[in-house]
Amino acid sequence: MGDIGKRIARKIGGAIVNYNMIEDGDTILAAVSGGKDSMTLMYHLLRKEASFPVKFHVRGLHIKTDFCNCVKKSRMEEVLSSWGADFDMLYVPVLKRIKPGEKMNCYWCSTQRRMELIKYAGKHGFNKIALGHHMDDMLETFFMNMAYKSELSTMLPVLKLDRYPVTIIRPLAYVKEEEIVRFAETLGLNRLVCACPYGKNSKRKEIRKIIASMADTGENIRENLFRAMGNPVNRYLPKP
Amino acid sequence: MGDIGKRIARKIGGAIVNYNMIEDGDTILAAVSGGKDSMTLMYHLLRKEASFPVKFHVRGLHIKTDFCNCVKKSRMEEVLSSWGADFDMLYVPVLKRIKPGEKMNCYWCSTQRRMELIKYAGKHGFNKIALGHHMDDMLETFFMNMAYKSELSTMLPVLKLDRYPVTIIRPLAYVKEEEIVRFAETLGLNRLVCACPYGKNSKRKEIRKIIASMADTGENIRENLFRAMGNPVNRYLPKP
Repeated sequence: MGDIGKRIARKIGGAIVNYNMIEDGDTILAAVSGGKDSMTLMYHLLRKEASFPVKFHVRGLHIKTDFCNCVKKSRMEEVLSSWGADFDMLYVPVLKRIKPGEKMNCYWCSTQRRMELIKYAGKHGFNKIALGHHMDDMLETFFMNMAYKSELSTMLPVLKLDRYPVTIIRPLAYVKEEEIVRFAETLGLNRLVCACPYGKNSKRKEIRKIIASMADTGENIRENLFRAMGNPVNRYLPKP
Repeated sequence: MGDIGKRIARKIGGAIVNYNMIEDGDTILAAVSGGKDSMTLMYHLLRKEASFPVKFHVRGLHIKTDFCNCVKKSRMEEVLSSWGADFDMLYVPVLKRIKPGEKMNCYWCSTQRRMELIKYAGKHGFNKIALGHHMDDMLETFFMNMAYKSELSTMLPVLKLDRYPVTIIRPLAYVKEEEIVRFAETLGLNRLVCACPYGKNSKRKEIRKIIASMADTGENIRENLFRAMGNPVNRYLPKP
């Protein structure tokens, strides 16, 4: 799988160990949109399933919405099958759930799909849900939470849900988007599915550019920022 | 003093109260470089000294170095005198202290001057030192500490020193640089002294631009970022 694949595999292994993401007997539901991130996640989780000393099972779930009748879906299914992946497709009419006067937005749609994942996991006995968020997603959320919510907070590599018997894991936490792009190219995984017709959250796009300019000011800035998120020095933060 | 002066006075008052910066009987040494920030600080501390319900005394201290023979110093002294300010000048040969093979840099020079302030305060019975750092300085330090030190930390509005009987206060913590620039213009305080011949820390300049682009993505972003620094949500920060 090439150097970049090996590097990603190593980073995923590191995150799994450091955050204690996977335990013996785990059944993991991986959310597979068909995009480069979740396909990279699925590819590597399948390899870990085969080789990892800790025994676990992973199954993919693709949520199909009523606003994306993407013809390329069958290609995604072919690729997953070629990897020997166990996966399921679930149809969720997101558009139909919008109440009169409401408008579609990223946050709402992702909450709808997240709830379906949790319900599916509960119904089919999965104790973990793996999501394809990577280091850059976590950094962007951190910056957005600072700028628009006045909070130092982000998505967690491991989040035990309070109200459901399910733990969310993000095995790509140490992997940079740029690495995923390179890996996906080597495997031809880019553009397996159409982009969301509603487009990306525009604030997130702006914040992404800002982090990119920050990263240009030195070496390993993304890695430094990631470590900073886990290193609040409370005695050197101003009390409100 | 105009609307901008009143706004700054209000913000300084808010910071003094919220952070409990000034207590009855305090003797405060204000570091006065002659730049817009410290002149604004001195101007407003003098007014508070005259009007504040809590009684305190403020005295300015200008540290003159051996690399800035600025002809405009006398203008700064004239302005301070016209305000009725009590102040002193101290000569510190910073350049001469550089050991062979060492190079001048912002961090080292400011440490030299900081130590002189602390020594002067101890010798003359001051229990507080007021510095002219404003909100943007604190944000820049926060971003630099994230990107280059992998830490969530910044300069504090109030810092009680461990090893000296002195507390550092930053009454301009709530004031934005843009506000100081506008105020300094109305009073003709800009360019009273020459800029440091060694120039500004270049990383700080880059980070300043990055924060400016962030601020352009919405309303009150600087204020939000400032509040975020005091609002670490530890359960939503990744453990290292």
